[in-house]
Amino acid sequence: MTYKANTINSMQNAIDQLSRPESARMVYMPQHGRSMPSVKVLSELVEKLREVIFPGYFGNASLHPENLKYHIGVNVDRIYRLLADQVLKGICFTCKAENSYRCEDCEDEALDKAAMLIERLPEIRRLLATDVKAAYLGDPAAKSQGEIIFSYPSIRAMTNHRVAHELYKINVPLIPRIISEMAHSETGIDIHPAAEIGEHFAIDHGTGVVIGETSKIGNNVKVYQGVTLGARSFPLDENGNPIKGIPRHPVVEDDVVIYANATILGRITVGKGSMIGGNIWVTKNVPPKSKIIQQRPLDQRYVDGAGI
Amino acid sequence: MTYKANTINSMQNAIDQLSRPESARMVYMPQHGRSMPSVKVLSELVEKLREVIFPGYFGNASLHPENLKYHIGVNVDRIYRLLADQVLKGICFTCKAENSYRCEDCEDEALDKAAMLIERLPEIRRLLATDVKAAYLGDPAAKSQGEIIFSYPSIRAMTNHRVAHELYKINVPLIPRIISEMAHSETGIDIHPAAEIGEHFAIDHGTGVVIGETSKIGNNVKVYQGVTLGARSFPLDENGNPIKGIPRHPVVEDDVVIYANATILGRITVGKGSMIGGNIWVTKNVPPKSKIIQQRPLDQRYVDGAGI
Amino acid sequence: MTYKANTINSMQNAIDQLSRPESARMVYMPQHGRSMPSVKVLSELVEKLREVIFPGYFGNASLHPENLKYHIGVNVDRIYRLLADQVLKGICFTCKAENSYRCEDCEDEALDKAAMLIERLPEIRRLLATDVKAAYLGDPAAKSQGEIIFSYPSIRAMTNHRVAHELYKINVPLIPRIISEMAHSETGIDIHPAAEIGEHFAIDHGTGVVIGETSKIGNNVKVYQGVTLGARSFPLDENGNPIKGIPRHPVVEDDVVIYANATILGRITVGKGSMIGGNIWVTKNVPPKSKIIQQRPLDQRYVDGAGI
Amino acid sequence: MTYKANTINSMQNAIDQLSRPESARMVYMPQHGRSMPSVKVLSELVEKLREVIFPGYFGNASLHPENLKYHIGVNVDRIYRLLADQVLKGICFTCKAENSYRCEDCEDEALDKAAMLIERLPEIRRLLATDVKAAYLGDPAAKSQGEIIFSYPSIRAMTNHRVAHELYKINVPLIPRIISEMAHSETGIDIHPAAEIGEHFAIDHGTGVVIGETSKIGNNVKVYQGVTLGARSFPLDENGNPIKGIPRHPVVEDDVVIYANATILGRITVGKGSMIGGNIWVTKNVPPKSKIIQQRPLDQRYVDGAGI
Amino acid sequence: MTYKANTINSMQNAIDQLSRPESARMVYMPQHGRSMPSVKVLSELVEKLREVIFPGYFGNASLHPENLKYHIGVNVDRIYRLLADQVLKGICFTCKAENSYRCEDCEDEALDKAAMLIERLPEIRRLLATDVKAAYLGDPAAKSQGEIIFSYPSIRAMTNHRVAHELYKINVPLIPRIISEMAHSETGIDIHPAAEIGEHFAIDHGTGVVIGETSKIGNNVKVYQGVTLGARSFPLDENGNPIKGIPRHPVVEDDVVIYANATILGRITVGKGSMIGGNIWVTKNVPPKSKIIQQRPLDQRYVDGAGI
Amino acid sequence: MTYKANTINSMQNAIDQLSRPESARMVYMPQHGRSMPSVKVLSELVEKLREVIFPGYFGNASLHPENLKYHIGVNVDRIYRLLADQVLKGICFTCKAENSYRCEDCEDEALDKAAMLIERLPEIRRLLATDVKAAYLGDPAAKSQGEIIFSYPSIRAMTNHRVAHELYKINVPLIPRIISEMAHSETGIDIHPAAEIGEHFAIDHGTGVVIGETSKIGNNVKVYQGVTLGARSFPLDENGNPIKGIPRHPVVEDDVVIYANATILGRITVGKGSMIGGNIWVTKNVPPKSKIIQQRPLDQRYVDGAGI
Repeated sequence: MTYKANTINSMQNAIDQLSRPESARMVYMPQHGRSMPSVKVLSELVEKLREVIFPGYFGNASLHPENLKYHIGVNVDRIYRLLADQVLKGICFTCKAENSYRCEDCEDEALDKAAMLIERLPEIRRLLATDVKAAYLGDPAAKSQGEIIFSYPSIRAMTNHRVAHELYKINVPLIPRIISEMAHSETGIDIHPAAEIGEHFAIDHGTGVVIGETSKIGNNVKVYQGVTLGARSFPLDENGNPIKGIPRHPVVEDDVVIYANATILGRITVGKGSMIGGNIWVTKNVPPKSKIIQQRPLDQRYVDGAGI
Repeated sequence: MTYKANTINSMQNAIDQLSRPESARMVYMPQHGRSMPSVKVLSELVEKLREVIFPGYFGNASLHPENLKYHIGVNVDRIYRLLADQVLKGICFTCKAENSYRCEDCEDEALDKAAMLIERLPEIRRLLATDVKAAYLGDPAAKSQGEIIFSYPSIRAMTNHRVAHELYKINVPLIPRIISEMAHSETGIDIHPAAEIGEHFAIDHGTGVVIGETSKIGNNVKVYQGVTLGARSFPLDENGNPIKGIPRHPVVEDDVVIYANATILGRITVGKGSMIGGNIWVTKNVPPKSKIIQQRPLDQRYVDGAGI
Repeated sequence: MTYKANTINSMQNAIDQLSRPESARMVYMPQHGRSMPSVKVLSELVEKLREVIFPGYFGNASLHPENLKYHIGVNVDRIYRLLADQVLKGICFTCKAENSYRCEDCEDEALDKAAMLIERLPEIRRLLATDVKAAYLGDPAAKSQGEIIFSYPSIRAMTNHRVAHELYKINVPLIPRIISEMAHSETGIDIHPAAEIGEHFAIDHGTGVVIGETSKIGNNVKVYQGVTLGARSFPLDENGNPIKGIPRHPVVEDDVVIYANATILGRITVGKGSMIGGNIWVTKNVPPKSKIIQQRPLDQRYVDGAGI
Repeated sequence: MTYKANTINSMQNAIDQLSRPESARMVYMPQHGRSMPSVKVLSELVEKLREVIFPGYFGNASLHPENLKYHIGVNVDRIYRLLADQVLKGICFTCKAENSYRCEDCEDEALDKAAMLIERLPEIRRLLATDVKAAYLGDPAAKSQGEIIFSYPSIRAMTNHRVAHELYKINVPLIPRIISEMAHSETGIDIHPAAEIGEHFAIDHGTGVVIGETSKIGNNVKVYQGVTLGARSFPLDENGNPIKGIPRHPVVEDDVVIYANATILGRITVGKGSMIGGNIWVTKNVPPKSKIIQQRPLDQRYVDGAGI
Repeated sequence: MTYKANTINSMQNAIDQLSRPESARMVYMPQHGRSMPSVKVLSELVEKLREVIFPGYFGNASLHPENLKYHIGVNVDRIYRLLADQVLKGICFTCKAENSYRCEDCEDEALDKAAMLIERLPEIRRLLATDVKAAYLGDPAAKSQGEIIFSYPSIRAMTNHRVAHELYKINVPLIPRIISEMAHSETGIDIHPAAEIGEHFAIDHGTGVVIGETSKIGNNVKVYQGVTLGARSFPLDENGNPIKGIPRHPVVEDDVVIYANATILGRITVGKGSMIGGNIWVTKNVPPKSKIIQQRPLDQRYVDGAGI
Repeated sequence: MTYKANTINSMQNAIDQLSRPESARMVYMPQHGRSMPSVKVLSELVEKLREVIFPGYFGNASLHPENLKYHIGVNVDRIYRLLADQVLKGICFTCKAENSYRCEDCEDEALDKAAMLIERLPEIRRLLATDVKAAYLGDPAAKSQGEIIFSYPSIRAMTNHRVAHELYKINVPLIPRIISEMAHSETGIDIHPAAEIGEHFAIDHGTGVVIGETSKIGNNVKVYQGVTLGARSFPLDENGNPIKGIPRHPVVEDDVVIYANATILGRITVGKGSMIGGNIWVTKNVPPKSKIIQQRPLDQRYVDGAGI
């Protein structure tokens, strides 16, 4: 390929503009030397977590009781190392210091936090086992628990969430969010790592589900595709920036079912044992044992070619 | 990286807990020796199917009438082998026997079922050609049928579905479900492999579409993004498990259009030629030639800063 | 693996059927010698664009002010070459000529259009910087602008859109659509490359958002997950094909907020400063400063086991 | 790319010729259904063997005494599975039966032979440790034993040989030869798997070393690059085929050193403690404690531009 | 990683020096816009050639008489396309024109030459079949012809040579040389593409074999590892550059055997039926039916610790 | 695959043995936490070095004078980072400290040494340019300097050597040796990183060339395949270990040519302008302007079937 002279000029010009410090600053170019977390490495990490949490389903090994421990051991080792490295990058990403601070000092913190996650893995497995059970009991189309573990997007999303939530609780920056977004991209289920979710949580189909940062969900709750637990408007500080951390998402108590595409907004409570019908917009508290559904639609005779 | 002594201890402890048989049983660890189907292999399989069904669009070959047969021949060969292997793994996954049974005996069954799918490929192509036509006639933004085949998520989803549905009909376990979930993850369109769908089926945009296990859809039906054909509640057996296989999803007759985010639940019938407006919740039969739309929203004047 | 005799026959039979010219024509097999654009190459292209637009966030380099120009320079070079090649394939895909026309003649056009995109990159960066700012101001859960750039699906979708839109404006065929579909698959956000979108555009969560071909969106607009800016029915020409290019999607003026799952259809105008509540179906003009929300749902007491 | 008409014809013609059964038979096309061993899989196998035999040098894990067992356990598992599969393919490759025989029956044999190799791994490690020691003591340029293990081609070649030799001894067909050729390609050292080699064997530099099938080498032997232990001529059977398995390569007793490019041919014995100088051609027995070197070269004055 | 200030300076300095036109000219930087042949693509090409020439041995297909033609057809297609592209790059690499010349004009030539190679494939297969036969008859360690095809480096080297030689004969620049060097790197056998080699050619072990540009080898010749057919000194032109194309390598007549490490130099003839012993230096004609071997070495008693 | 009970036992047994600390110590298992240099990363490093030293030949960019600097800049950046990381691993590999020492302290040293190599790159290019020139003038088969740069193994080997030698001179441990062995494996040319080699050095064909640690080679020297510059016997210290660092390889003065397979051993001098014939064994000084060749071989009449 030969470049035309004016092409070389116009490319040169674009390169010059794009390299100007003020242009790079406009898009918040990170302080130099910061290397970013890697979505590819985090994907491997999550795959390894899945192998450890659900032994025998993922990875290419053939597990039996005698070799289980070796495989768990090696995978835990690898998880620890990958995670420590990524947590370190997450810490470096958010630290403010410029010259006086060496990110290498954060290494100890990263190693400790990676080890803390390892300690929580048995509990994460226990919680996910309740989610598998809930999915099985809630779906007549499911042939077995194994099918759910292997192929249901809800279990994939909840595995990422329960891991991300533990990392969130020990103040790991950025990484939990990336892990959540990976599940979001794969499944269409968007759960903020900070959201608190009880046992036996079921998500059916799941595409379009949104569960916001300060949501609290009890036990035995089931949501369908397109359900939003979101925020209404939020207060700004004196600089016009949103104030962080104010509870602004719903509390959903035990034994609630929320049908497809229901939008529930604000710090309201959906009371225990309630049934929320699909396609409704809920911004007020719902007492326990409520059943709320959309108004009946208008019913007309369709005239061919009339359009909607 | 040097491990701290207490890190080694806590990792050791986690490994021990995670390796305990009772903990592994809690997450239904498969009987040993079972090797699982591979999403990666199934992805290659589906790519090869796409190359065979829509010659000239996918793969890196340059096809012309003289070499078409070679490419079809090689791809069919590969599909047969990949599929037989994965079907075998699907059969092994679900078989109950523990000692007396050797999965190798299932190989003949797997080979036969793979061959059956090959036989159905011309018919699958014919059906998909009607879907391409429907998409073209239903979308003024489409420049050509080729653009639809190459880039529309609905065709991607329907290719997976029509293949998965054939596998479902010949009782291949697990694999159809995985193929459906692959399309679900890529397109946000979630069609159960058992769903029966007629000719000239169009899905516009598609994200969030859910079509449940016992749905029946006629010819010339069009659905938009976010449409659910789902189930209402379902009966449980004496053990509290959902009873399988009961018809519980809608029947949609010919020439129906369903607009975005409509949720249609239960074994109801949407009559021929009806138009279902968006964002509504439908749980009752809809007579032919109906047009049903949402109640008009409440209309207010917005006060700056008032929030919702 | 040994093939059974009847398997060989039935495979042979399927291969013969699938190779018949009339069967291949049914699925619009491209004229021979046309090689298709590559989704894999376009993925690399978009990654490189992200590296250039948001320096320091993507790619595995460690950028500082002294080496920024080298990295921009090399990436721009690669973008130019990848893009020229793909644009050429897009042109070849759509050209009608059969014998008299050699696609090689289109090469100059492809090189020129690739160079034009390079020239627009500084402006694309400027626009995306406003989108980052809007996302940050609109989300209390966001910790920093960097987190938004690195991990928010809306920025990913808007990067693809703003690039695809530039390519659309200079009449590059097919490629813009593929770039849009790549974002759609990853994020669930489906924006037609032709849609005109102003500055400071925010999409929250995003799954299920659809923005149609002839939509026009002003500045400072925010939409939530599941929002559709779609078309109502459209006129057909004398052959029954949809007439292309007629304005049929909404105009959304400045400072509008549209909540989750709202469906807005047809060439209507949503007036400046309006607030559209979630889960509603809007097919009529909305005056400026309106606030419209769904009718209150029906409220009932839930009886255990009653189902919906 | 458009094909010219005569190109299509000539390609068609070549394809027809190359597909003729008699042409394929000419190059011994395998009986159908036989799938061949995979050099790629065997490469992974050898890498895993290296990781197990020399823990801490290869692979990307970070080993310490506490996690060593997990890594050994997982690698041994993988070696067993990969090897059993490849041994099976080796058996299938050589079996003569056409119809009455199912290669699947060989699976038990393959599993057993893979397990036998696993049992021999500790002994293989012990032998290789002596080779490392010999290399270290024989090379003043070596900085440490670790450097030798990590980077010396002789240890790479001997690892492959000692594994291949064990497989040869238990009658695994084909696979040992492939493993030997892999080392040959990487190091230029060509050792037939059947060759018997004692402890503390050193090969310096190694390129061009050939050690033939029926060679026997004692302990503490050292050979330099380009040394051949080969055969002279060999008898043919009544059909003109070489008679297999006759001892026809040298016996090299303990404590022998053979310098670069010496060629030692035939079933002769190089006696204990001998020193064989480089570039000589030896076809007669060498008594113990011999030192044999090349005749002095002719020595002349070089005249500029005269050439050789 | 943070860069030290002086590191940035010294890197900057090195970059400046390395980017100077006169420094780049010193290493013959190609005229801009020339894209080089790809060793990676040529590797794939050679693998495909191996699959076509020796069906059933390479590639991951399972061939039987019914599907052989499809696989040959697809591979020939791919060979044609890959080769045409690489030949074009070879032509561009060597063409002298700077501005007035567009390499695209060479495309026709490249397509034609690729097609010519395809036409020669059946003959190349026939020749290689004679080489396999020769290797089998010449090696008692060979278990079967299949083993030789699958794993002997000599067949690998001769496959590359016989292909490269055909390309050489039709004046394809550069590419034949690269194909030869690929075999050289893998096997240690270095055959210039121009060398003429008869039928039934055997190379045993092969490492270090060199066969120079103007060599001519008859039928039924066998050479062992380390054999050189090389040039003595050569004349220079008035500028001090070597004069190209003068015959300067040996002619080896039918039925000759040359043992390991023999060095045969200059345009001499090794007469029919001769036997050349190993490790000798031959620069004079060898009459037919000769047997020449090295002078006997000096034989001494080795004194412990005396060294050589 | 089901494991037999006794297989599980024997595998378990092997795992136990291989995991014993004393068995691991036998093969010098590195101190824990040490992570090894990576051959894969070093391969990328060498490829990048080749791209920088010979711009326009390697890598997939299309270089012209305007973009050369960007490509050099980015590659130098990457070389610096990859090298610093690998040098650090080399330092950690050899450091003796166990507890009191943290390898992280070596990072500064690694960064400095990586920067030093960058500084030497212009000089390395200059030297290699002389080698290219020498190869061109010494080989009538060479079509152009470009062909030599792109495809001659000697230039590949010398590039690795001249880089490895610079690293050796600044006391980088292990890495230079690995870089040399990479070239050895690819080309069969084995040059110790410590060897000192003058300008205009040519290696023809190269397989089997060995140039030992303390060799010194002048300017305008040419060696052919199979040439060894090696050591005779060497003294041991009181522990029986070889004493390191004693000059024990030849000094080759300017303008010497050494033909194929000549073996030159010990700290002798080959005088200026000498010509060493092939296949000879030289252990004494060679005065300037000498020409030494092998004794004439014995010449006999070959009797059919007599063998050698």
